[in-house]
Amino acid sequence: MPISLLDYLADHEDELVNDLIAFVRIPSLSGSPDRKPDILKAAEWLVARMRRAGIENVEILQTDGHPTVYGDWLHAGTDAQTVLIYGHYDVQPSEPNELWETPAFEPAVRDGKLFGRGAADDKGGVAAGVAAVEALLKTGELPSVNIKFCFEGEEEIGSPNLAPLIERERERFAADLVVSVDGGHWSAEQPQLVLGLRGATVAELHVTGPSSDLHSGLYGGAVLNPLEAISRILASMRSPDGRITIEGFYDDVVTPSEQDRAAIARIPGGADEIREATGVPALHGEPGYTPREHTWIRPTLEINGIWGGYSGPGLKTVIPAEAHAKISCRLVANQDPDRVRELLAAHVARHTPVGVKARLDPLPGRATPYSISADYPANKLLSEILNEIYGVAPYETRVGGSVPVVPVFQDLLNAPTITVGCSTLDCCLHAPNEFVHLRTLHRGTMTVAMLLRRLGVV
Amino acid sequence: MPISLLDYLADHEDELVNDLIAFVRIPSLSGSPDRKPDILKAAEWLVARMRRAGIENVEILQTDGHPTVYGDWLHAGTDAQTVLIYGHYDVQPSEPNELWETPAFEPAVRDGKLFGRGAADDKGGVAAGVAAVEALLKTGELPSVNIKFCFEGEEEIGSPNLAPLIERERERFAADLVVSVDGGHWSAEQPQLVLGLRGATVAELHVTGPSSDLHSGLYGGAVLNPLEAISRILASMRSPDGRITIEGFYDDVVTPSEQDRAAIARIPGGADEIREATGVPALHGEPGYTPREHTWIRPTLEINGIWGGYSGPGLKTVIPAEAHAKISCRLVANQDPDRVRELLAAHVARHTPVGVKARLDPLPGRATPYSISADYPANKLLSEILNEIYGVAPYETRVGGSVPVVPVFQDLLNAPTITVGCSTLDCCLHAPNEFVHLRTLHRGTMTVAMLLRRLGVV
Repeated sequence: MPISLLDYLADHEDELVNDLIAFVRIPSLSGSPDRKPDILKAAEWLVARMRRAGIENVEILQTDGHPTVYGDWLHAGTDAQTVLIYGHYDVQPSEPNELWETPAFEPAVRDGKLFGRGAADDKGGVAAGVAAVEALLKTGELPSVNIKFCFEGEEEIGSPNLAPLIERERERFAADLVVSVDGGHWSAEQPQLVLGLRGATVAELHVTGPSSDLHSGLYGGAVLNPLEAISRILASMRSPDGRITIEGFYDDVVTPSEQDRAAIARIPGGADEIREATGVPALHGEPGYTPREHTWIRPTLEINGIWGGYSGPGLKTVIPAEAHAKISCRLVANQDPDRVRELLAAHVARHTPVGVKARLDPLPGRATPYSISADYPANKLLSEILNEIYGVAPYETRVGGSVPVVPVFQDLLNAPTITVGCSTLDCCLHAPNEFVHLRTLHRGTMTVAMLLRRLGVV
Repeated sequence: MPISLLDYLADHEDELVNDLIAFVRIPSLSGSPDRKPDILKAAEWLVARMRRAGIENVEILQTDGHPTVYGDWLHAGTDAQTVLIYGHYDVQPSEPNELWETPAFEPAVRDGKLFGRGAADDKGGVAAGVAAVEALLKTGELPSVNIKFCFEGEEEIGSPNLAPLIERERERFAADLVVSVDGGHWSAEQPQLVLGLRGATVAELHVTGPSSDLHSGLYGGAVLNPLEAISRILASMRSPDGRITIEGFYDDVVTPSEQDRAAIARIPGGADEIREATGVPALHGEPGYTPREHTWIRPTLEINGIWGGYSGPGLKTVIPAEAHAKISCRLVANQDPDRVRELLAAHVARHTPVGVKARLDPLPGRATPYSISADYPANKLLSEILNEIYGVAPYETRVGGSVPVVPVFQDLLNAPTITVGCSTLDCCLHAPNEFVHLRTLHRGTMTVAMLLRRLGVV
């Protein structure tokens, strides 16, 4: 008598944890050139694990950077839809190492949590995705959709080589829907549907004045100091009340619906939570919106760095020849990153004081904003499944940051992305003592398995 | 038959050049701890040279830093006035060394100029001052005043130990007038009287927001970015037209007299010269004043450095916890450095936006502004002598920078300072290929000698 899907998953929970321990033990740091062998070791570990799960055509696809691991299971029939499962096997650096209770790459289980760099982001998600498909194949409760896998090794460094790979191999990756396992939930008890990611446009501002550094005593007063000029230009980009003053900046922004705003308002915490997480003396944002709306559904402009002149101990009496700043805008639907950068450049040109020159150079980091409705069929199904597993309806959330690969799937494959996963807001992503709740890991496996079983079934 | 003073000086011109070559050869870099032996070597060289000149009571006075060389000649009689000759034997760093045509510490004569670090600033002045007194003593055309020498070894690092030394040894240094040989002229053909130095007040601005760096995607829009806040605070300190907007900043500024402004206007060059020297696209300064007035007789506020967030390659998506800037004000009579710093702190407090905290810390570099009239008797005599030597009346100039020791002599010894010397505006002070015109060096010796012979003689 065949074992049920959920019983199988329950029976194999320990195996999943042991797999994840082996996976986390490999320090697959995409940002460290000397860890290239570990990146390859992680990719090879994943290949073996996927083959063991019964996934077919597993192979390592080379890129100009770290490779992507592909695999598929295409036996749902030619009329069935195809789902591309996306995740990444590379991890963030572990520094500062002295803040870890147990070493980052020596995974340890404590209090129902598995600690280690990548346990949540995103080796937990990848392991859960593979285990979910394995359970479907081993129990004979076969998926209702064809399945492909795309596990990349460069997410933590901005996925520089994934879009070219997908463009080159459109046929291989062709899919109707992307299920990203690089996600998670509000808490161990509260699931979420992720309905949006902000986009981004990134630039570097260079202001030049004198042809070389000047003695500030000898020339101060007769020339415009580039540091004063850059301060003036940067201060001109937002009104003191928090509204961005770049002409045309809000033109393409889709006004959030009352329904969306009400769904966001239903999530508890909000202002208090952001104040506590950031430690700022007071919150500050665009008038007319709540702090959570500021970070989820409204665009922003941030200065990410500024430098110029002398910053060592004491004073150096200098009027520097140059001043510099890094600027990024987070964008929401339907803003276009390139158009926003043009508006920014036009603003800089209009606000450059006489006496200096200013230039705005693009930086890598362009991302189209992404949003998907809670009413999108796959999201409605996901919502039902989460409700079944957790016993509560998911929150409808957004991510203030950007995940550039999601709009890439939309653009190149015409495939929308829904997000599942095993992380939670408390699990120290990119920080010391990263962990995954074992309970959430298991529930993530259940979610993916139930989704793949029921997707496209009317 | 005794030789005349001027003939003696003419006969000993080569000896002066050879002395200066030996002096410049010692790399007495006050800013480099590993050059301490060279600083001592330069001080000892100077002691030997002064003794050879007939100067008495020559000794090295220890300080908490590099020593000061003292000496005197006190035979003008108890009714005679006392003149303190001030200069320094330390030098600026020579970097970038590759831009020197001949090595910085291998002095070389070319085209009537002696090249080498310190040739003009200020070993030329020191050598000329000693040679002038030697000529007076050797020719029997004895000085009309008692003479003391104060040659310090820390001018290029801000004279941190000179004021305490003078305070400790007020009796030793007591004088009616200071003659600084750390000065120079407009050009090899055009002498000048220096009638003012700007003062300075220096501070560091610290702006803090979140308790640690934040992800700019996740929190951008809901908190005030400290880099935006510091830009706003800095931009608030001056109106776009160039007037400083700190409340009370101009309260104590002495309005320049029409006579002073006319004397400045008579000096050719002005705007063109500053534009050419700085290479700025356009000059920019307080309305109602000329560029030369901006740098000589009007106060200014300069941002000397700014830093915060990420400044490496590419982007780091950060809202930094902190932002920093170094600020200096150049002051004119009768501004008080401490009061101006208080006004600046009050301005910062008034202009700190909600959502961040700001703190203004003092930095070393405080200097009282200094001015002396062209009608002051010693300046009138100096003007006559310069007219005799150069055949033209000196320009009445100011220095936009600060020389902290000059107000110290005024405060501690009640002695005003007049300025002579051997440098010229073209001689690359603090830069590669520093030189002194041999003709100006000789004329500097003549100036000091004639001044000491005629001072106080009615």
